[in-house]
Amino acid sequence: MSQLLLLGSRVAVGCCRLTRRNLLPTRDSKRFELVVATSTKCNANFEGKQRGFHGHGGAAGEDSSDPGKWGTSSGLLMVGAAAVIGGIGLSALVNSSKCAEKKQAAQSAGKVIKGLPEYNHDDVEKHNSPETGIWMTYKNGVYDVTSFVAHHPGGDKIMLAGGGSLEPFWALYAVHQSDETLALLETLRIGNYKDDERIQKKDVNDPFASEPHRHPALTVNSKKPFNAEPPPELLIDSFITPNELFFVRNHLPVPVFDKKNFKLNVEVPGKKTIKLSVDELKKYKEHTITGTMQCAGNRRSQMSNYKTVKGLSWKFGAISTAEWTGVMLRDVLLKAGLTEEDEAKFAYVQFEGLDKDPNGGSYGSSIPLSVAMNPYRDVLLAYKMNGQDIPADHGHPLRVIIPGNIGARSVKWLSKVIVSDKESPSHWQQKDYKSFNPSVEFGQLNYDTAPPVQEYPVQSAICYPKEGSSVDVDEEKVTVKGYAWSGGGRGILRVDVSVDGGQKWHVAELKDAGQKIQRVWAWTQWEAEIPIPKDHKGKLDIYCKAIDSSHNVQPDTMKGIWNVRGLMNTAWHRVNVKVVE
Amino acid sequence: MSQLLLLGSRVAVGCCRLTRRNLLPTRDSKRFELVVATSTKCNANFEGKQRGFHGHGGAAGEDSSDPGKWGTSSGLLMVGAAAVIGGIGLSALVNSSKCAEKKQAAQSAGKVIKGLPEYNHDDVEKHNSPETGIWMTYKNGVYDVTSFVAHHPGGDKIMLAGGGSLEPFWALYAVHQSDETLALLETLRIGNYKDDERIQKKDVNDPFASEPHRHPALTVNSKKPFNAEPPPELLIDSFITPNELFFVRNHLPVPVFDKKNFKLNVEVPGKKTIKLSVDELKKYKEHTITGTMQCAGNRRSQMSNYKTVKGLSWKFGAISTAEWTGVMLRDVLLKAGLTEEDEAKFAYVQFEGLDKDPNGGSYGSSIPLSVAMNPYRDVLLAYKMNGQDIPADHGHPLRVIIPGNIGARSVKWLSKVIVSDKESPSHWQQKDYKSFNPSVEFGQLNYDTAPPVQEYPVQSAICYPKEGSSVDVDEEKVTVKGYAWSGGGRGILRVDVSVDGGQKWHVAELKDAGQKIQRVWAWTQWEAEIPIPKDHKGKLDIYCKAIDSSHNVQPDTMKGIWNVRGLMNTAWHRVNVKVVE
Repeated sequence: MSQLLLLGSRVAVGCCRLTRRNLLPTRDSKRFELVVATSTKCNANFEGKQRGFHGHGGAAGEDSSDPGKWGTSSGLLMVGAAAVIGGIGLSALVNSSKCAEKKQAAQSAGKVIKGLPEYNHDDVEKHNSPETGIWMTYKNGVYDVTSFVAHHPGGDKIMLAGGGSLEPFWALYAVHQSDETLALLETLRIGNYKDDERIQKKDVNDPFASEPHRHPALTVNSKKPFNAEPPPELLIDSFITPNELFFVRNHLPVPVFDKKNFKLNVEVPGKKTIKLSVDELKKYKEHTITGTMQCAGNRRSQMSNYKTVKGLSWKFGAISTAEWTGVMLRDVLLKAGLTEEDEAKFAYVQFEGLDKDPNGGSYGSSIPLSVAMNPYRDVLLAYKMNGQDIPADHGHPLRVIIPGNIGARSVKWLSKVIVSDKESPSHWQQKDYKSFNPSVEFGQLNYDTAPPVQEYPVQSAICYPKEGSSVDVDEEKVTVKGYAWSGGGRGILRVDVSVDGGQKWHVAELKDAGQKIQRVWAWTQWEAEIPIPKDHKGKLDIYCKAIDSSHNVQPDTMKGIWNVRGLMNTAWHRVNVKVVE
Repeated sequence: MSQLLLLGSRVAVGCCRLTRRNLLPTRDSKRFELVVATSTKCNANFEGKQRGFHGHGGAAGEDSSDPGKWGTSSGLLMVGAAAVIGGIGLSALVNSSKCAEKKQAAQSAGKVIKGLPEYNHDDVEKHNSPETGIWMTYKNGVYDVTSFVAHHPGGDKIMLAGGGSLEPFWALYAVHQSDETLALLETLRIGNYKDDERIQKKDVNDPFASEPHRHPALTVNSKKPFNAEPPPELLIDSFITPNELFFVRNHLPVPVFDKKNFKLNVEVPGKKTIKLSVDELKKYKEHTITGTMQCAGNRRSQMSNYKTVKGLSWKFGAISTAEWTGVMLRDVLLKAGLTEEDEAKFAYVQFEGLDKDPNGGSYGSSIPLSVAMNPYRDVLLAYKMNGQDIPADHGHPLRVIIPGNIGARSVKWLSKVIVSDKESPSHWQQKDYKSFNPSVEFGQLNYDTAPPVQEYPVQSAICYPKEGSSVDVDEEKVTVKGYAWSGGGRGILRVDVSVDGGQKWHVAELKDAGQKIQRVWAWTQWEAEIPIPKDHKGKLDIYCKAIDSSHNVQPDTMKGIWNVRGLMNTAWHRVNVKVVE
């Protein structure tokens, strides 16, 4: 009982605000005295479980209400956690000096502590299960949270950070950003983290040997090239997807190149090519948009359930939202000398990335030049993603952002912008990302007859409850949450939810970013409380469908949209839950 | 046998080119000699039935092949008609002077002939059946075609002009525009036509007493206000819909106003209102677009078949296409002093028509100002429709054209353009043209919760074969034709047709206007040859569905889109035919 634990929590958002006196503990000193703060600044508010729109629907408030032991090494910390979980109203006096101590502890969280062992990404990554121990990083700190996870007020979502960093989760659940939580975290400190940025080159013949680290919460669909999606239930927990959890769709190895001398080439026929470093680009007027990106193959696995398709088996997490900051492509093209006459003459603008296929060909795409030049389309040359330099997996240092289009057109590691009378010659513009009639089989694909997919149609999916989960019949209602999005700046007008196969539809409550009319580049998140049909027991199908501002709707089934490449699966989304007594 | 009949026809397009020697016949002199021309200029080409993309699928080529009598008054004319119908190759010599005579006859067609009786619109309108006699007008001529209609090589479509003018049909079937046809027509001349433009005011208390004449081919859904659609099978016979056959959707009486002193008011807050006559407007740069207009209620009657809805019972002809000529609203707003700051401040531009409700309120609408100002959206203040002054029913002298939006936003008889921070206060912006969830009934409509419909979603319909028609099993294939359109400039990417309920889909051949990328304001017409399922007899359902350039698709059924106002019925379109032996 060497330390005093300050406990302050709003259980509603699944967070425990726990602090301790010992600001810089060693791994072996994790026994604390428990005090529940009642002072204004360090108080504990037990308000019971609330349904916050973005609260994560974990086990908060439903565990044991008796304080007890929290593992062997954490001592009284578990008392605090259990108290939080149980939502018991306790109070004790804490003086202001304790608050100050707590603050100091919080400020030290994640900083290098001399004398602690040093671990790198690989060391941490291995510790992702109860068997290996569950480690996490926070800035420069490495933490062993093995004994805490079972008591995490936010439920088992904490496990998704096992072997990886806490930061993206704390970005999702901002309530963690408190002195109490940071101070509690620091009690679990076991070492310092040395971020070596890229995995060491182990095999010079492996073009994927220098890939960046990825967060273990991502569900990997393909390692080489790397393709991974966040668990869909995380997507709805914040409007912006943290960079580390943003789905990754790479077609080729992440390129290794000379960053210092990087220049973007901008070519307009008949004009001198201009070459711009990122710093030079930053002299143009800066714009920030909130934009959702979705892979054309999102929900492909469900299309395959209907009839097998070819492609990466994405669930429904190949969609994410970020704030993109950069300059308007339009401004740069005008600077490069593009005239109205050029616009009439050249229909396309092509993009080339630095990522290369084995033959030296670049990943590439093209869009109509009129889209690039339309000031209402907000096509950006972006260098920031959620306020940070765009990470390696998302196109560092430059990515062209085509808001409202499929992700494949927003070329990462952008190195060339070429105005042309032709579409990009890239494989991914010419021979992929094209959709065919439901009766065309793989051997029959004539890519020349199908135009490249650009804007995405209207889409929605149910992220909560999870497929196969149980719903208590006594609740009488089931809370359903998800996302909806439409391409081309068409916002979502309505989301309807049905639990009787589409006979009766319930209107969901919407949350969007309040974007400009017809420039709604970001998704809409939604939530609905649906009455469980009277006397219903057992299997219950929950359907959702969205309607966009142009009144386009999702099709009922896959009958009319199935295509052998499994693109644009926008059929009504269904999850199946079990109503239990 | 006082006259020589020159016969020249391409049966494929259902036209007979018949001329006669007597250039200005009286009603009683309709007996001709028959000669089939073989000279280059006045030749007859019997090429048998062809499947022209726009050929009308009438009875051409399937009637009697024996020359015989064509009614009592037409004499040998019927021989020519029957010969054309039968597709028999005949030839005879005609000298060039006869060609010249024919030309002269053709030039006189439709001109006033002194001494003939004069008929007005009401006189002609009454003659629309075999019982009353079938009269038609062509320019200033009135013709009695009663005995000809049964022998019309183009089938019974000629009956649609009964009691009305031929011009819109000859605009559809341009092959009629030949000297032979005109000369033949003139043989049926019975009088001169006096177009009194508007129906005479019979009842000063009837606000509809001064409505313009309408073509009898239109199917009338409501007389006051006038709402009518062309038979859908006519829509696909030409890419452009003739003005007289363009669907009419009036919400109020066609206004009567002082045309000489007409001025358009353009109001930008804080700026001096500018007032422009049509002649002053014409000083701005002129633009022409080919644009399809569709009523939000098109296909409502089919939605009502699923479950009753409220509104005018449109079939699937409440859609038409015209060339609209005018000036860019953007240019006029800039001239009126609109700045970038105004654009950031005012979200909408409102439109007011001259048509008034009983309380003196105008018909009105509004669109986002960003749509009006976006140079890629082509919003026009139009004064011409298919090269003519906009007709009274379509908004003479000015109509704002919002390409890609529902027709209701393109205000007719446009008198005011008002930049505002609010939507139009008009009933039709606030309390109509809004869509609700399928489970909302009429008494539950909360108009404040639904935004006004603007862009139309992806749509398609089968115009040929007609519902209930028969298909010969020996043909092995059924020719299916229709239209497809999507709002917002999104062109049609593909149309699929199925005769097995959507298990197998056939790709249709498309015809569009070759418009600019993402500025596809006009529809796509399509045609497909679908094999009749083996051994199929009896009822056969034919379905179509379109996919637009944003990969939006039509929903399978009405289950998810039904709404009590019957708007935006875009479910797969179905016609039922009978396969007969």
